[in-house]
Amino acid sequence: MQLHKYPILEKIKEPEQLRSLTYKELIELAREIRQLIVRTVSKNGGHLASNLGIVELTLALHRVFKSPEDKIVFDVGHQCYPHKLITGRYKAFHTIRKNGGLSGFPKRSESEHDAFDTGHASTSISAALGMLAAENILGSKHHVIAVIGDGALTGGLAYEALSHAGHLQLPLIVVLNDNKMSISPNVGGLAKHLSRLTMTGSYQRVRSRIDQLIKKIPLFGDRLYNLVVRIKRSIKVLFYPQNFFIEMGFEYVGPIDGHNLPILEDVFDDVKQLGKPVVVHVITRKGRGYNQAERDPSKFHGIGPFSVEDGLVEKSSGSTFTDAFGDSVAKLAGVRSDVVAITAAMEKGTGLSRFHDQFPNRFFDVGIAEAHAVTFAAGLAARGLRPVVAVYSTFMQRSVDSVIHDVALQQLPVVFALDRSGFVPDDGETHQGLFDIALFRSVPNFVLLAPASAKELDLMLSWAVSSGKPCMLRYPKDVCPDEIPVLSSPLIEGQGVFLRQNRASICILFTGSLLHQVEDAANRLSIAGYPCDVYHLRFLKPIDEEHLLSAMEPYKTVVVVEEGVQQGGIGEYLGALLLQKKTNVRFLSIGCPDQFHPQGSRQELLTRNRLDGMGLADRITQFLMPTMKETELRIVGK
Amino acid sequence: MQLHKYPILEKIKEPEQLRSLTYKELIELAREIRQLIVRTVSKNGGHLASNLGIVELTLALHRVFKSPEDKIVFDVGHQCYPHKLITGRYKAFHTIRKNGGLSGFPKRSESEHDAFDTGHASTSISAALGMLAAENILGSKHHVIAVIGDGALTGGLAYEALSHAGHLQLPLIVVLNDNKMSISPNVGGLAKHLSRLTMTGSYQRVRSRIDQLIKKIPLFGDRLYNLVVRIKRSIKVLFYPQNFFIEMGFEYVGPIDGHNLPILEDVFDDVKQLGKPVVVHVITRKGRGYNQAERDPSKFHGIGPFSVEDGLVEKSSGSTFTDAFGDSVAKLAGVRSDVVAITAAMEKGTGLSRFHDQFPNRFFDVGIAEAHAVTFAAGLAARGLRPVVAVYSTFMQRSVDSVIHDVALQQLPVVFALDRSGFVPDDGETHQGLFDIALFRSVPNFVLLAPASAKELDLMLSWAVSSGKPCMLRYPKDVCPDEIPVLSSPLIEGQGVFLRQNRASICILFTGSLLHQVEDAANRLSIAGYPCDVYHLRFLKPIDEEHLLSAMEPYKTVVVVEEGVQQGGIGEYLGALLLQKKTNVRFLSIGCPDQFHPQGSRQELLTRNRLDGMGLADRITQFLMPTMKETELRIVGK
Repeated sequence: MQLHKYPILEKIKEPEQLRSLTYKELIELAREIRQLIVRTVSKNGGHLASNLGIVELTLALHRVFKSPEDKIVFDVGHQCYPHKLITGRYKAFHTIRKNGGLSGFPKRSESEHDAFDTGHASTSISAALGMLAAENILGSKHHVIAVIGDGALTGGLAYEALSHAGHLQLPLIVVLNDNKMSISPNVGGLAKHLSRLTMTGSYQRVRSRIDQLIKKIPLFGDRLYNLVVRIKRSIKVLFYPQNFFIEMGFEYVGPIDGHNLPILEDVFDDVKQLGKPVVVHVITRKGRGYNQAERDPSKFHGIGPFSVEDGLVEKSSGSTFTDAFGDSVAKLAGVRSDVVAITAAMEKGTGLSRFHDQFPNRFFDVGIAEAHAVTFAAGLAARGLRPVVAVYSTFMQRSVDSVIHDVALQQLPVVFALDRSGFVPDDGETHQGLFDIALFRSVPNFVLLAPASAKELDLMLSWAVSSGKPCMLRYPKDVCPDEIPVLSSPLIEGQGVFLRQNRASICILFTGSLLHQVEDAANRLSIAGYPCDVYHLRFLKPIDEEHLLSAMEPYKTVVVVEEGVQQGGIGEYLGALLLQKKTNVRFLSIGCPDQFHPQGSRQELLTRNRLDGMGLADRITQFLMPTMKETELRIVGK
Repeated sequence: MQLHKYPILEKIKEPEQLRSLTYKELIELAREIRQLIVRTVSKNGGHLASNLGIVELTLALHRVFKSPEDKIVFDVGHQCYPHKLITGRYKAFHTIRKNGGLSGFPKRSESEHDAFDTGHASTSISAALGMLAAENILGSKHHVIAVIGDGALTGGLAYEALSHAGHLQLPLIVVLNDNKMSISPNVGGLAKHLSRLTMTGSYQRVRSRIDQLIKKIPLFGDRLYNLVVRIKRSIKVLFYPQNFFIEMGFEYVGPIDGHNLPILEDVFDDVKQLGKPVVVHVITRKGRGYNQAERDPSKFHGIGPFSVEDGLVEKSSGSTFTDAFGDSVAKLAGVRSDVVAITAAMEKGTGLSRFHDQFPNRFFDVGIAEAHAVTFAAGLAARGLRPVVAVYSTFMQRSVDSVIHDVALQQLPVVFALDRSGFVPDDGETHQGLFDIALFRSVPNFVLLAPASAKELDLMLSWAVSSGKPCMLRYPKDVCPDEIPVLSSPLIEGQGVFLRQNRASICILFTGSLLHQVEDAANRLSIAGYPCDVYHLRFLKPIDEEHLLSAMEPYKTVVVVEEGVQQGGIGEYLGALLLQKKTNVRFLSIGCPDQFHPQGSRQELLTRNRLDGMGLADRITQFLMPTMKETELRIVGK
């Protein structure tokens, strides 16, 4: 199977072995790492461009600092593959992002070299500062390094941490991995300016001229020259009289060529001694070493399986909920001039590219800043517009207070489109979209909708924008199921629709994303002698209780199926409602177990948690006939 | 009643009337406003020092800008009293923060001059930017001004918004009301430096010298001189070569004496024309005009009723949960050297002052930065310490993702002490602590506890810190009830305790904060012929289901009472559980209605929502005997 050889890489079991390599060997090692990453991501999907860009930086960090005693915290984790490869995970690397395999993100449970779990952006400086404050209290002297990209710097959490770190003045080392992906003006502007200098070489020329100049200063010349940090800082001051990081209380070193190992190591050796908070500004090239990715780093940021030769991505089959939303919102904006769209660095991922193209003045990408995205939308709504905020479910966890305090309290008509709700393929624990129902169902004045098909999504989006209420649509990262006529029936607030209504004694209620699975389960149950009616809730909040109770009146057994955490979910609500209003019904609530869910494909995750058709059929049969054995059930279910 | 006269103020019905006043009258008006604010806050409690500091700034803003067409967004709202007084709310001002009265915060529902509802810090720039972006799309040209304090600038949301505003380059006007309350190094350091200059007068001298200098520049001299903004900026550049706001893409004007009306108006007139995002840096004095408050602005920031003459605050009777936590955490830190405490600008409010005094090296106030507080604590815990994060319940809404992603996912032993859970007196909608149960019950690996007394809080805190798990304690802003021996009984994870167990047919389960109310209700019910047993849950998560079900086995009726939103609360969970396991019980869930709750005293809020003893007794009786009329119930309940 192994067509490619990695003679140096396969010998590296621990990062300390890197120290005995020559620069020639290290350059060869970097090549091997890149080759293996390209090969592996082309099969497994994953984050490519950022990992290719950080190879030398990773090697330099591990040669200068002594992991695991020194702690290296990788922000987001989109750039931890080279780190994983040189910290004992070479052999397992082909399993990355696969069910049961290596995580695509740092995991303390996976290696002692993974200092802190990441996945969401902008956490590294906070976490690293906490670790360093602990070192300080414990009286130990290990180094703590946060490695953060320029994109993640747009997040408010990073700023809060920089500000606190500048105040504490502990010797935190922040490595700014600047690969020009930030959309923020300041950092982005700075980065653009810096990299232009680096590329043209004028920076290098000026630097050596300044070096000469400083040497000539009487008395202090040579001493100054040895204090590389000070020198670099003075260079910086010459170039950039205004520097964000110095404002924040940090020393600043940079910009450094992030692909030049000796320079990187020199600088890290210096800052190790500094005893103060410092930002090391490193310029790297996304996609470095793989032409396709260098040419289009955005495409190769996070990517599905592709062909190494031509960079073509395998097409997914069928139209997705993301596609459906992208079409619907653009269509709606064509009809309503008050519709504006906001996202937080997820334009492509949420399907907003078409909207952006057609209505550039009504499109806002605020960067990795989910809380601001929501409060900004509240401001737009307060002046009469109808903002649609499109964000992944997992990242909306960052905007809870903005939703409560800035949108719901004032009943502002902001519509939230939550892509990747429910189980999310491949990214694992940090990216599952399982909390949104529980988090946002508790918010007063809020309407929660879960479409089951593309047409229903379109219907719900129009309804939500017209309603003048704060509304949220949640839908999965999945292909849309085939349309059923009833899904196009007009929406009535708080009411769902029957997909099957044949006077059965069992009714299955479900939330939008599981249409296919519930239909499958109902078929299996029917064959096994348990015909079920099926009711699609449509609205998760509000629920027209009178209507629902009357719809459930005929049933002896009610089963609720939702793709979200059970704690705080819709199942608990309906259970409590039924018990308070009508005590003679049998009730089963099925949702996602109260735990974090490691990676797998969407199908694997559903199967693992028995939310696929067979799993649902088995659980319902078991509930109805608890004496039956699992093996018998399986046969019945088939 | 009206001992003091406000002859100018009482004539101001609309802010435009301010424009016809002379400076002499305006100075007198400022004096009247201050006098009325001191008188009113001394009776009603409220935010004093910040409101006294912003009087002239408010007058200048309303004279230069035309509200309500121009929008003035007050961050947090701690400084909106002068604004309220000159926008038609003079007569109602004595009702501020009282049940049914004026809110202590801006409210769009209260006046068209309140552009955006605030209450939590750091939202103003986001909201104002959204409003301005809307103006731009709608093709209108009104001004939008965000007024933000230096403290609120430590919040990440403010930074996210500044960064986006710098990118958009819309003419947003940010007024930085710098009263030196920030604890952040950068902004704080800058502010200190600036105000020192202003106070000594050297700034004024240098400014006039530079004015002369600029006039002398041939050709451009006079023209430049007229561009006040440019001049000010050049002064700034001379003084402060590194300026945070210019980095962010803003023009910068300042520092300006915030008590000098003509200067303020000149500057606002200028920036109105600028057409670019600009920060106007204004230096104000907290507590201005009231000696007691000028001397101790921190004490007079948010304050209860006090004596105007000597500034002495009325003592509350009895020891509070805040006191109990402050004592317990300091005691625990004396025993365990690994205990560290973190807060986010709530040191006094959370009772951490004693801890800070005794263990300064283990105490961290991170500023208004709740997300960072949590992720920073996660870092501390990852290195082996046992952090206790003390924050108000309402502000924890800002840390949901940090709790999920940085603490719970890695099962790090961070303990959260949520003060002001449940109904919070006087502050109204924005400050109620009603969401914590719903939000955090959905988080895997999480333990939720609700102590009912000081001793139980102490027990729970020790247990939580020792458990090695992420734990959260929630308790109200209230006096602790008298101790009952059973509250000191050892904790068993997931299990509660009976406070009454007399083989009644009804059992009331409750969450800690309502001990007194539930006991009162049980007494009333007993007298009315409905004896109840009472079970204190202690743990809201996890719940030992087997233990609970067996404890509930004897009862015909189970009532759950919680002080939190019902949607996603513990009542729904228990209802669904009982229905799934045991269908023949009658069940009633009582919590807070699904709405935002306006201000009132804690007692008023409980009574209004029928969570006081009589309200609970009435509701339970009504549930048991639904045919009885409310009036009869009242008699029974008495």
